[in-house]
Amino acid sequence: MSVIITSTAPSTRSPQVAVELRLALDDLYARYVACLDEARFDDWPGFFTEDCVYKVMPRENYDRGLPLATMAAESRGMLIDRAYGIQNTLYHQPYYQRHLVSGLLVREIAHEVNDGQAPGRRLIRTQANYAVFRTKQNHLSEVFNVGRYIDTIVEVEGELRFAEKLCVFDSELIPNSLIYPL
Amino acid sequence: MSVIITSTAPSTRSPQVAVELRLALDDLYARYVACLDEARFDDWPGFFTEDCVYKVMPRENYDRGLPLATMAAESRGMLIDRAYGIQNTLYHQPYYQRHLVSGLLVREIAHEVNDGQAPGRRLIRTQANYAVFRTKQNHLSEVFNVGRYIDTIVEVEGELRFAEKLCVFDSELIPNSLIYPL
Amino acid sequence: MSVIITSTAPSTRSPQVAVELRLALDDLYARYVACLDEARFDDWPGFFTEDCVYKVMPRENYDRGLPLATMAAESRGMLIDRAYGIQNTLYHQPYYQRHLVSGLLVREIAHEVNDGQAPGRRLIRTQANYAVFRTKQNHLSEVFNVGRYIDTIVEVEGELRFAEKLCVFDSELIPNSLIYPL
Repeated sequence: MSVIITSTAPSTRSPQVAVELRLALDDLYARYVACLDEARFDDWPGFFTEDCVYKVMPRENYDRGLPLATMAAESRGMLIDRAYGIQNTLYHQPYYQRHLVSGLLVREIAHEVNDGQAPGRRLIRTQANYAVFRTKQNHLSEVFNVGRYIDTIVEVEGELRFAEKLCVFDSELIPNSLIYPL
Repeated sequence: MSVIITSTAPSTRSPQVAVELRLALDDLYARYVACLDEARFDDWPGFFTEDCVYKVMPRENYDRGLPLATMAAESRGMLIDRAYGIQNTLYHQPYYQRHLVSGLLVREIAHEVNDGQAPGRRLIRTQANYAVFRTKQNHLSEVFNVGRYIDTIVEVEGELRFAEKLCVFDSELIPNSLIYPL
Repeated sequence: MSVIITSTAPSTRSPQVAVELRLALDDLYARYVACLDEARFDDWPGFFTEDCVYKVMPRENYDRGLPLATMAAESRGMLIDRAYGIQNTLYHQPYYQRHLVSGLLVREIAHEVNDGQAPGRRLIRTQANYAVFRTKQNHLSEVFNVGRYIDTIVEVEGELRFAEKLCVFDSELIPNSLIYPL
């Protein structure tokens, strides 16, 4: 798969985005974090394409182009496995998550090129800042993980889905282990 | 009062909402939190209907259907009492609040049915994540309370107002007591 | 420069704002915080007008009308100096910033009056809540500074720019010194 960029985001202005698309993106992020914060982990893989990439990685690795990731999946099937593991096999102390997301930017809108075939999917490249608060039983809520989503979104059967989602977090330290998706 | 649901939010798509309504909802939440963060408590009841329900409750109680709430009011009059108490009779150490709200979702749009009478008010059911930071005098700002607003909004005299507002917070522990509304 | 107010925001309703302007404002804030969080400090002054005012000040001073500010600049040139200092001369322990912004309100839309000359620039007065998280190397992310942007935005050469930006923070205490812009 290669990509032709049909629109780029200069540092002082974002590509023109139709109002409907813009609101649909807001809605996608809102539903995504609601799914996680309500711990509906079985619904989580449904936000992704079949051949998706999902990674959680420290900012330092991302900025230096290092591939090492804290969590990595390269298909929806792997996300389904993860969702199963969280709920059935992974031993862990449960905690609540609460996501705040802001600063959604459409970085570019491009199109896949499929080797001379029909025009490929439209790729919407976005980023947004997130902060995740964690609440453990009988504890106060605390800052758990903050960073940036760097995503590629496509439309599949009338729904926006993540073809790639990178959760690039600022702190290399994570309080205890990261169990649930970000 | 009973409710007919005319539109439901499946987990992968929210009901169609006109752009103007969507922006009016954003504006409502922004004005609501500005009112609280600027400590204009006398303006706070004006965001609610006369017969409103306002509750602050832990997530665990909400999820289990338990009615116990940390703060509960069942009319605008009770909110006015509360606003008076905060500013005049409740002894407390003052603190600043700062709300961040994101992930606004329109869950459904329904209509009241009034026993064969004219069509009732339109009910806009929303939810949004919030984080409230608290700053006490000579202290650093800290995470105070995070959770989810679960609201029902109606239009009264051309203004959007809360007919019901539930502030469902993640931590059962609250640093000291909760004085100001969320 | 004097100002005629052509539209005011009563406490229960914000001035009518065209959808395109509203989304352009969202985009401006998103690009502004992305610039800072990605530490592209040389791009930062480009978000301001030549004769801008930029101040970081405690809420208590702002509320009482006291002029004292933690950081103050009265032209884009001073911001350029600051950006240079941050990157070249100011000795400091580097840290990452992560901004969350929500509750954007258009407070009023006014027009400058230029002593009988052609109509002046349109002034868009906004406010928004922000929370900045700081991550130092080998430390957890923490709440660094929360408060309110109180801004005046104008259009210059087809771009929205800050003519005035006040960062009014809630805590008089700041963990260590404030190095990077908010």
